[in-house]
Formats: sequence, structure tokens, C-alpha cells
Amino acid sequence: MTPQVRALVFDVFGTVVDWYGSIVAEVARIGLPVDGPGFALAWRAGYEPAMQEVRSGALPWTNVDGLHRRILDRLLAERGVALPQAATEDLNRIWHRLVPWPDSVAGLARLKTRYTVSTLSNGNLSLLVAMARQAGLPWDAVLSAELFGHYKPDPEVYLGAARLLDLAPQQLLMVAAHPGDLRAAAACGLRTACIPRPLEYGPGGALAAWAEGEFDLVAGDLGELANRLGC
Amino acid sequence: MTPQVRALVFDVFGTVVDWYGSIVAEVARIGLPVDGPGFALAWRAGYEPAMQEVRSGALPWTNVDGLHRRILDRLLAERGVALPQAATEDLNRIWHRLVPWPDSVAGLARLKTRYTVSTLSNGNLSLLVAMARQAGLPWDAVLSAELFGHYKPDPEVYLGAARLLDLAPQQLLMVAAHPGDLRAAAACGLRTACIPRPLEYGPGGALAAWAEGEFDLVAGDLGELANRLGC
Repeated sequence: MTPQVRALVFDVFGTVVDWYGSIVAEVARIGLPVDGPGFALAWRAGYEPAMQEVRSGALPWTNVDGLHRRILDRLLAERGVALPQAATEDLNRIWHRLVPWPDSVAGLARLKTRYTVSTLSNGNLSLLVAMARQAGLPWDAVLSAELFGHYKPDPEVYLGAARLLDLAPQQLLMVAAHPGDLRAAAACGLRTACIPRPLEYGPGGALAAWAEGEFDLVAGDLGELANRLGC
Repeated sequence: MTPQVRALVFDVFGTVVDWYGSIVAEVARIGLPVDGPGFALAWRAGYEPAMQEVRSGALPWTNVDGLHRRILDRLLAERGVALPQAATEDLNRIWHRLVPWPDSVAGLARLKTRYTVSTLSNGNLSLLVAMARQAGLPWDAVLSAELFGHYKPDPEVYLGAARLLDLAPQQLLMVAAHPGDLRAAAACGLRTACIPRPLEYGPGGALAAWAEGEFDLVAGDLGELANRLGC
């Protein structure tokens, strides 16, 4: 199906790791006096508008640690929760400690036997490196939107990854749970694999829709992706 | 000795992998009608002047694959050797397949248990990723001069690595066989570990000199470095 593919580039938040479950667990662990599921969803919901502020120029380049912190400060203020600086900073770094989906580590290890596997995330490089060390994600390369000064779905990110990996866009397979990410990658010439993650937004969360045949591959998890790619 | 160090950043050519031995072996393997040791030394000797052409602006930004190819084409022409394009390109990619020193893979695995381990090489990112896959080098991150548009020993490379890893310069330990690289890192505030590689330039090759106490650490190989750092 994709004989010319040489490298797989992965969206991370939601595709490889479970931000919702990890944040809900962290809120409980530290006894933060908020509704865990609502707090996790609100934190994530602040992310796209924050990146749009950067994209529009309203905010100078700010990495994802910085964007997460701005949103977190607002959410805590709105809920009347006062935390010491060090505790706020540690809570903000929950995004460095997100737990992989059960299939992620083993799936990546299989895919890596045949393909270069790299992140292609909006998360900053230091966040992605810390997460990989914590979670045991066996990346060959850690590529971040930060390297290009643009956030996905800006084309600079997908084309920048192809350039750094010294591959043509069609030699890259973008792997993501999010149709919008995949559509933007396809517009740059990348091949696409959709890994729907029904639990990304928690039990009963809605899955974004896509059209039949819109992506090169659809697989239930990274193990099935490895099967489909002959790894 | 270096309690605040959080990440180790490595020079690669000569420090982690053996370019001399790998090129001599490749020349023999493909039956290239040249003197292997002389050819390896000449190829490497072309590298600094080529980076200087980029640094001075005489040459627009050219990655190390490109610089190696320019030098290779000249060396083959000087020796009257005509190769097909595909064979020349494959020979140029010997730099992607350099063999690690015997202590490198195990040493990095030990160092990684306690520190983030990253390349900080002038080699382009795709070269470093291919090398890591081929040689089994367990990097947490692959950082290249290419990301900063400057070659070592320009300060932008050392300071850029600290920025991307979200660490202060003194939280980084630069590990290299080359005093010049370490001196430039130290001038940027990094800590330094010298790993002399007496065979880098082949049997009887000269080792660059340094002064007693000039570097924070001197270790005979990466295993000894792991011992010294308590890994």
C-alpha cells in the first residue's frame, strides 16, 4: 500500500499517549480540589486557541510548556485554587509524564525494526525527550514543531520533517488520531495513517469523523499498524 | 564533580564512532583502487576547511552529507577514479554506517540510566539517525548543528542545545575526543568531559594536546565515564 514509505512520524498527545487519563489520575494523586475529567478537558481545550494566538502573531513564539502553563494558571484562578509555584510547575509537567496507550511501546518497537520512527508533535523537544525517557518510547528521532517555529497544522512542520529526514514527503507516513492533522499532512504530500483513539477525550468522548478512503491506512492501534506494514 | 549536570551531549565522529577504521574497511570492501588509510585521512582533512567555507559565507549552508560529497568528488578526481553516481553516493554514505568504538553502545546505555544522552554533532540529522539505527546507539535525542544553521565550534550550537533541552549551559556535559570542541563548549558555560581516542587517526596518529585540569573530566572510554558519573 505504501511501498515507498521510509519513516513514520507520529502525533503524540492522544495518538501515542493518553493525556486525559494521565491528567485525571494526577489530579486525584495530588488531591487537587477540582473535577478531574472537566479539568483535563478544559486544559486540553485551551491548547488550540493558544496555538492560534501564536500563529496569528498575537503571542510571540511560546513553546507548549509555556502555553500549557498559561492555560493552567487561568484554570486554577477560575476555580479559586492557589498552589505554590513549585507545585504549579510540577503539575504543568504532567504533560512530560503522560502514560502511553497500552499498545504504544510494543507497537513502536515493532515498527522501528523496519522504519525510522520519529515524533512530529507540537510538544516542545524537552517535553518529548522527558516523556520518551519516562515512558520508554523508543524513538529514532524526536522532531518537534519547535524546530520549525510553526505549529501543526502549518505546512512548515510536515515539510520541515521531510527535509530533516532527507526524504521526499511521500516517503513519510504521518500517524495520528486526528483527521485534521492527517489532512494537513496529506496536503503536503505525506502518506497518512489514522489511529482512532475512542478514549482520547474520556469515556463517551466524541471521535472526529472522516470519510471512507480519506487516509491511506486506518488501524485500531499501533500493533495493528505494525501488522498492516509487515513489521 | 558535576552534580548539576542533567544531560550529556556527545560529539560523534571520532568520539563515539571510528571514522578512520570504518572508511579503511569500506575502501577494502568495495575494492576502491586507492590507499585506504591515506584516503580516509584526506577525506576527514577536507572537513574543517569545508565547514569554514560555510562559516565564512563562501558557501551557502550545506549539510555534512553535501560537504562530504564535495570532498569525495575531488578526492576521486585527484586519484583518477571514476565511479558510477550510485556507487559514489553509496560510498559517501559510509559516514552513515560508521562503526562505534567497542565501548560506545554499552557506555551510552549505562549513562542513559541517569542522564539524558544526545548527539551534538556537526553531522546532519538524517545521517545521525541512520547511524544510530545501524549501530544501535541509544540516543534520547538527536541534535545536530543543522538545527541551528551553524557548525561547531560556533557558540550557537552549544547554546542552542541547552535551549532545546530546556537546561542551563552548566547542566550540560559536552563529551568529546577533541579539545577544541570542549574549549568552545566551556566558553559557552557547558561542563566538559574529554575522551581521548588514540586510534582516531589510525595507528600512530597524533592526539591533540590539552593542559592538566583544563576539562572537568578525562576518561579513557564511555565505560569509565559511566563509572566516574556513578552510573
